Amino acid sequence: MDVFVINPTITSRWNEGTQHAYASAARPGTRVTVLSLDWGTASIESQRDEVLITPGVLGRAVEAEQAGADAVIVDCMADPGLQAARELLDIPFVGPAQASMHLAAMLGHKFSFLTVFDQDVPPAEDLVNRYGLSSKLASVRAFNIPVLALEEDVDETVRVLVELAEKAVREDGAHVIVPGCTGLAGLAPRIQAGLRERDCEVPVLDPPSVAVKVAESLVDLGQSHSKRTYAPPPGKELRWPTSIPFTT
Amino acid sequence: MDVFVINPTITSRWNEGTQHAYASAARPGTRVTVLSLDWGTASIESQRDEVLITPGVLGRAVEAEQAGADAVIVDCMADPGLQAARELLDIPFVGPAQASMHLAAMLGHKFSFLTVFDQDVPPAEDLVNRYGLSSKLASVRAFNIPVLALEEDVDETVRVLVELAEKAVREDGAHVIVPGCTGLAGLAPRIQAGLRERDCEVPVLDPPSVAVKVAESLVDLGQSHSKRTYAPPPGKELRWPTSIPFTT
Amino acid sequence: MDVFVINPTITSRWNEGTQHAYASAARPGTRVTVLSLDWGTASIESQRDEVLITPGVLGRAVEAEQAGADAVIVDCMADPGLQAARELLDIPFVGPAQASMHLAAMLGHKFSFLTVFDQDVPPAEDLVNRYGLSSKLASVRAFNIPVLALEEDVDETVRVLVELAEKAVREDGAHVIVPGCTGLAGLAPRIQAGLRERDCEVPVLDPPSVAVKVAESLVDLGQSHSKRTYAPPPGKELRWPTSIPFTT
Amino acid sequence: MDVFVINPTITSRWNEGTQHAYASAARPGTRVTVLSLDWGTASIESQRDEVLITPGVLGRAVEAEQAGADAVIVDCMADPGLQAARELLDIPFVGPAQASMHLAAMLGHKFSFLTVFDQDVPPAEDLVNRYGLSSKLASVRAFNIPVLALEEDVDETVRVLVELAEKAVREDGAHVIVPGCTGLAGLAPRIQAGLRERDCEVPVLDPPSVAVKVAESLVDLGQSHSKRTYAPPPGKELRWPTSIPFTT
Amino acid sequence: MDVFVINPTITSRWNEGTQHAYASAARPGTRVTVLSLDWGTASIESQRDEVLITPGVLGRAVEAEQAGADAVIVDCMADPGLQAARELLDIPFVGPAQASMHLAAMLGHKFSFLTVFDQDVPPAEDLVNRYGLSSKLASVRAFNIPVLALEEDVDETVRVLVELAEKAVREDGAHVIVPGCTGLAGLAPRIQAGLRERDCEVPVLDPPSVAVKVAESLVDLGQSHSKRTYAPPPGKELRWPTSIPFTT
Amino acid sequence: MDVFVINPTITSRWNEGTQHAYASAARPGTRVTVLSLDWGTASIESQRDEVLITPGVLGRAVEAEQAGADAVIVDCMADPGLQAARELLDIPFVGPAQASMHLAAMLGHKFSFLTVFDQDVPPAEDLVNRYGLSSKLASVRAFNIPVLALEEDVDETVRVLVELAEKAVREDGAHVIVPGCTGLAGLAPRIQAGLRERDCEVPVLDPPSVAVKVAESLVDLGQSHSKRTYAPPPGKELRWPTSIPFTT
Repeated sequence: MDVFVINPTITSRWNEGTQHAYASAARPGTRVTVLSLDWGTASIESQRDEVLITPGVLGRAVEAEQAGADAVIVDCMADPGLQAARELLDIPFVGPAQASMHLAAMLGHKFSFLTVFDQDVPPAEDLVNRYGLSSKLASVRAFNIPVLALEEDVDETVRVLVELAEKAVREDGAHVIVPGCTGLAGLAPRIQAGLRERDCEVPVLDPPSVAVKVAESLVDLGQSHSKRTYAPPPGKELRWPTSIPFTT
Repeated sequence: MDVFVINPTITSRWNEGTQHAYASAARPGTRVTVLSLDWGTASIESQRDEVLITPGVLGRAVEAEQAGADAVIVDCMADPGLQAARELLDIPFVGPAQASMHLAAMLGHKFSFLTVFDQDVPPAEDLVNRYGLSSKLASVRAFNIPVLALEEDVDETVRVLVELAEKAVREDGAHVIVPGCTGLAGLAPRIQAGLRERDCEVPVLDPPSVAVKVAESLVDLGQSHSKRTYAPPPGKELRWPTSIPFTT
Repeated sequence: MDVFVINPTITSRWNEGTQHAYASAARPGTRVTVLSLDWGTASIESQRDEVLITPGVLGRAVEAEQAGADAVIVDCMADPGLQAARELLDIPFVGPAQASMHLAAMLGHKFSFLTVFDQDVPPAEDLVNRYGLSSKLASVRAFNIPVLALEEDVDETVRVLVELAEKAVREDGAHVIVPGCTGLAGLAPRIQAGLRERDCEVPVLDPPSVAVKVAESLVDLGQSHSKRTYAPPPGKELRWPTSIPFTT
Repeated sequence: MDVFVINPTITSRWNEGTQHAYASAARPGTRVTVLSLDWGTASIESQRDEVLITPGVLGRAVEAEQAGADAVIVDCMADPGLQAARELLDIPFVGPAQASMHLAAMLGHKFSFLTVFDQDVPPAEDLVNRYGLSSKLASVRAFNIPVLALEEDVDETVRVLVELAEKAVREDGAHVIVPGCTGLAGLAPRIQAGLRERDCEVPVLDPPSVAVKVAESLVDLGQSHSKRTYAPPPGKELRWPTSIPFTT
Repeated sequence: MDVFVINPTITSRWNEGTQHAYASAARPGTRVTVLSLDWGTASIESQRDEVLITPGVLGRAVEAEQAGADAVIVDCMADPGLQAARELLDIPFVGPAQASMHLAAMLGHKFSFLTVFDQDVPPAEDLVNRYGLSSKLASVRAFNIPVLALEEDVDETVRVLVELAEKAVREDGAHVIVPGCTGLAGLAPRIQAGLRERDCEVPVLDPPSVAVKVAESLVDLGQSHSKRTYAPPPGKELRWPTSIPFTT
Repeated sequence: MDVFVINPTITSRWNEGTQHAYASAARPGTRVTVLSLDWGTASIESQRDEVLITPGVLGRAVEAEQAGADAVIVDCMADPGLQAARELLDIPFVGPAQASMHLAAMLGHKFSFLTVFDQDVPPAEDLVNRYGLSSKLASVRAFNIPVLALEEDVDETVRVLVELAEKAVREDGAHVIVPGCTGLAGLAPRIQAGLRERDCEVPVLDPPSVAVKVAESLVDLGQSHSKRTYAPPPGKELRWPTSIPFTT
């Protein structure tokens, strides 16, 4: 099966790492292709950033379906474009935040979501609320490291995340942890190990891996999103500065 | 005071009517300027449309502030760009949906929101939920007339809306009506009169008028949105096909 | 336009200050008249107080409408008599708590309400709940200064309020502050300035000013409360020790 | 034990019937005394009515405690004065609505509340909400018979109530019925029998009887309301047209 | 009246104490009979324990009804078997958790529930949620003393409970305390006295006593649970290792 | 990978069909083993049934883990024993209701759950509530065919289910359907096809298939439930009529 992952930024230098992160969670026979954007921002840390990258996400999603993808994943924990892309696609469009929050809700009493900056807390809480999971949320906490700096000192990043996760467990009652940035891909096992050392282990999910599993599951099940929620847009005049296949 | 109204579509032929709708609700001394977009769609009836017009809304909002506006209103009941624009602006950015839903919640026990198409019901319910007003919502009902056809036969449009509003009052327990499309600007009094004839009068708000009042009130109060919720975006690389002042 | 403000206590010595507080927020052409009560208590700090002053509020409200008022505001953050007065009036009856809580909900992610005594916390939470805004509430905190002592040492009052507001922002996640006593009228800018000095500025609303704006807005819009929520009381025998125009 | 029942109206002609209704639910050794008011309205069918009778309720409640009552019940399904009276009393003050709604919530999945007029639906829903029982509410429905006419044709009253209760059961999913007016005292068994005949029997509570049981239970347990929720009012100047023991 | 109390464990050595705890709360004329189980666990501190004792609870409940009981109480704050037993019984089946949580909700703004172990917090929160009382819950806190050790050093048990209750009052805003283990039967007055000494008295309920009062009240009222919620199980093949009267 | 499916009834005649249903959804390399119970009931249609089969489910779950299973699924839409079994197991224990409700919540705005009998509606709503998904629930509707009769006339079963699903879509706003009985395994595609013919297609999930996918995903991810929610039971005396490995 073919899974296309959209890196919703204008930066392609991490696409190889991203490809590896998703592919290592895929089962044999699942091919992973990573695409980044022509227009937008270098990372997504504000609502402004999200607005600017979402048109590109829609374009890449339509291209992926046309190229034969079986499912599309957007590599960002804001799940940018999820609603709109599903209007345009028949194949599953999976958001790692939605997928991992629902899995977290299945695995324990309450979960905490670790987001990038303090200013990302309100939209993260809004996202949990939109997905209907407010009663399963222990807390949203911010680690306040810029996305593009997460890989600069991975040990330090892990240390900060473990500390934050421990607070979520001990002070907020989190029983599952959802790292809220796909820039943390692959670090979940180290964060969980850090909690174990501090005697407060809980499952720490790796959202990219969870997204792959949900994508594979939906393809196996022959199911996709409901077209009653995500109907195709009515036809109308549309003007766009570059050629992107926005129309259905 | 200067209020800029962003018509978030690529259609400018109704800008004069829009200017009139907003200006007629403004008090003496409030100047209303209407701007439409270079890029996007001709109307907003889907999540795809909303994604495509929002970058343009941000651009116009920043331009308005630079041009000396005291407040900005986006002329669409999805309040597109509200979160992101507030990150970029110091002056108030008012959404007519947010403004009129909160006023509706103040005036009666529950309100109903009349949206365009059936497929707009889920995002409308999500919007009410995001604004924290779910417990004040009687129902969302769709009138299923395309936005661009609302003005073709205004009498018929009013007839359909009155009928739908009556159902909301009698069957859903609505005590206030919020017409959920700014294409209905100015029709609220006729819809309310229709309800009165059918012996079930309730307040029918005119969201553009309510938005003007909220904008004027905020300017009078010297207040704006909280920068703790809407912090300026962290600086970063940004690439965009046309010149729009996205950066702060 | 004529706005009548009911000071819902038996104390008239602050009426001049109250008149000034409301008038200074009004736009040119809005006349503000303040009335206090014949019977009741000297301040409102308990449910008992609220019960004893509400009949007088209804009386003054009806008198105001008969005297040609365009809108009535009750000068207390418990919004005493709001439901009952609306049954008796056609003109808008505005509660500063309802008005400022809804505006706060529009301006930021969550708001905190600063009430008088610890024992006022439950009724304040009940009020937020009745207005449908529980999901937008960060916290209710009490400053524990008697209402009648708020003006004794204004600097000290401001100091206590700033400290409490800072806790609401830093510990509870408040992004907007609503001072929960109209005895604090006019102090909002000083409280907000205090937060700015402590590097945690958020909008601090002045509820009397917000109430004036909502009253002016409703008069401009030609709207009032829904008579489906607030129907006139059925006629019946009524006995009262003093002559007050309770009947419709 | 001595239970005082406050008939919160200026009408005393039904006090004998009320005494009988409560006494017949009391166990041996419980004495029931009924008191009505000097000032207020002849029935309670609006928020205005509730405002006007509540000061008298407080007065009678304090008098009852001074006269040696072990508990006080207010004979109205709006539970008028419950919060304020508890500030003034150490002995239990029981509201039949609160008592019967909580019992209803214990006995079945969801309950319906049958209120007097359509205009009483919003305050009834607010009451359920204030008591924290919204998730156990199937519906509030109005029977639209004036309180003072309920006893004119009791058979007709029962017929209307049975019909309404059946709709609550079949259409709204009610598994318990709470008649929402103490003017229906004693009719619960006949309503339940009517449902049985129509093959949809569910428990129909008699709120006055439930209130007696809760009063007796609290006295037996040596418990009363929490003084942390209902603290005595701070002392202050108070002016009232008649001599009523409002002060603590 | 005859009230049967099921001790849902295989331990009978405390039955005499249990009988005394319940009987001392009963009014004259209420006989209390305590039964323990043949199969199950020695205490209930996990979901596994609850699963293993519940079949025995159903058996004892049916036997009690057959033996002429007027009401049945299960002596455990997880209310094990409440739903299933009500399907099998016509007489009231009372859970002390449900009874005391609802009474707590009537007596104050919010209540805290003191449970056994940290691992019992999630099921306790689920229970509050199932009973529809989440909005009245201040907190669930665990005292972390094994059930079978509660009586080893009663003074120490009281000391720990007072300390935990004080935290619930001061830090969580609890206005009523519900001790969440019937192994604490009879200690409520001592815990409440401890709070009084620490100047933060609130009602501390004794759940077994509350359960007796609710049982007596239901018998007095001639009411029981709704058979629309708790319908008799459809007949079917059933195999069980011991003879227990599971069938209706 | 080895997935053990527990048929939580004393009936083994459908185990072959059950094995086929689960195995056909499994990917190559996933072996499915079905086990039924020694003690309990022939089907699960009441709370009584659920109580009687759950001890056996725990026993089989422990045996499965001891036999080398990688994951366990309980084949019933009440997810019987989910909480308790997770206390006893380290490997994932998957409930098809939890798994399919969360997937349904991901795929559309709201879902409906089709349960067996009217009396199963309250526990089904309680289950949705416990899983934190109330805000995503459109409705629970009952098809009122006994579980053991579902296979007698499959065409008729499908016809009834399609009709019920259509009502859920058109009247309740369901955008995804969750058949609420594993006795309907394999019929989802036919129900969805029936909706398509009636022009109201939405995804109809096959809960056993979804459960297999969630089990496979968890094994792939190396994750399981949180031991902070599902801690091992404290050791204690335990007595049981048959030899079942209840102890950890």
